[in-house]
Amino acid sequence: MARTPVWKSIAIALTDDIAQGRYETGGKLPAEAQLSARFGVNRHTVRRALADMAAQGLVHSRRGAGVFVAAKPTDYPIGKRVRFHQNLAREGRIPAKKLLTLETRAAGLREAEALELQAGDPVLVYDGLSLADGQPIALAQAVFPAGLLPGLHEALEEDSSITESLKRCGVEDYTRRETRIAAKLATATQALHLQISEGAPILRTTSVSVDTNGTPIEFGRTWFAGDRVTLTVGGET
Amino acid sequence: MARTPVWKSIAIALTDDIAQGRYETGGKLPAEAQLSARFGVNRHTVRRALADMAAQGLVHSRRGAGVFVAAKPTDYPIGKRVRFHQNLAREGRIPAKKLLTLETRAAGLREAEALELQAGDPVLVYDGLSLADGQPIALAQAVFPAGLLPGLHEALEEDSSITESLKRCGVEDYTRRETRIAAKLATATQALHLQISEGAPILRTTSVSVDTNGTPIEFGRTWFAGDRVTLTVGGET
Repeated sequence: MARTPVWKSIAIALTDDIAQGRYETGGKLPAEAQLSARFGVNRHTVRRALADMAAQGLVHSRRGAGVFVAAKPTDYPIGKRVRFHQNLAREGRIPAKKLLTLETRAAGLREAEALELQAGDPVLVYDGLSLADGQPIALAQAVFPAGLLPGLHEALEEDSSITESLKRCGVEDYTRRETRIAAKLATATQALHLQISEGAPILRTTSVSVDTNGTPIEFGRTWFAGDRVTLTVGGET
Repeated sequence: MARTPVWKSIAIALTDDIAQGRYETGGKLPAEAQLSARFGVNRHTVRRALADMAAQGLVHSRRGAGVFVAAKPTDYPIGKRVRFHQNLAREGRIPAKKLLTLETRAAGLREAEALELQAGDPVLVYDGLSLADGQPIALAQAVFPAGLLPGLHEALEEDSSITESLKRCGVEDYTRRETRIAAKLATATQALHLQISEGAPILRTTSVSVDTNGTPIEFGRTWFAGDRVTLTVGGET
């Protein structure tokens, strides 16, 4: 078998340091000069090791500031019932939602089709930022049939949880018909909200949720920061 | 409501043209000068419309060659039974697999853990390229416990289907325990195989499949070209 190159063994050693807790999530790695001294190699070799770790999403560098230990991606189960707060709590993360905009407007073609409305019917559009332990992990847009859910606007303004707000409007349970998953590159606006780089990988999910009568009550699209979230399907849970 | 900007209405008109079949998948759009003339706008506005369509994955430009209509992404269902040939045939696409490498080597730590082996136990590693209608859509790596599946090496050399090859080794059925889905950026090597740009979005799935006794028989990782495939979960099918 081929010998491990020096830069690779440095990457393995540093990865192990992170796994052992020597460097903490969000913490800064030693400067290149210090790492060069520790491993007895030149800076070029250290840089190659760090670039390899960055490509794996283990660290990220901030220009002029240094190289930081990336948080481990959060597992996010996708199934019939997808509940943001529950999903994050199960992973031991503190969930939070930040409301960006909430407006009632006319449904576009695609929204109308998804919600079985006529184009132009009123929809309530919720745009929010989802956070785990204070770090942004996703931008979420939820489109609701405004005519079917009076009071939802007020409920969403008061309560950050979509599940709780729907309950207040009489929707005791809802399930996803299907989730569609695509990979995209972050746009400038998404990057700004998510505090990631423009062009960073994004997992985009699209779904239609129905109430217990099978009536569509939500057309949802979520843009997850690819380095911070792994979607899981069909696990034991 | 805000007025639609001119570039946006051009993008909508061209998108509609594509939907109506005026421009076919893989076909070239008219040159910028012709589109400027058709819509009565300057080239800058046409470029903005085309950039918007490219960002949505509807067209892609090849330097010096023009702007081409992108193929619609293939839906690829992820569930307990994921079968490449069936998945593509259901979508009306012609499936094909190209074997890249097939080798027996010692299991790495992660492979051993996934397959419930000891690190160093022999595994058979299959690397292949998956195509739809002749276009590459994914790179797939499947790692099998070589000791449990004698004859699999020969079977995979003769038959491009993993399902059929496993059947020849006595595995009548197998299901996925869980699928993990991440968004990544294409590396140079992946880009070359998939005929996409380096840094283009990639959907990476990771899964462990078990036979009817619950014994792990495959650790699989697949890198889908993000612009060509949409994963679907929990559909009616």
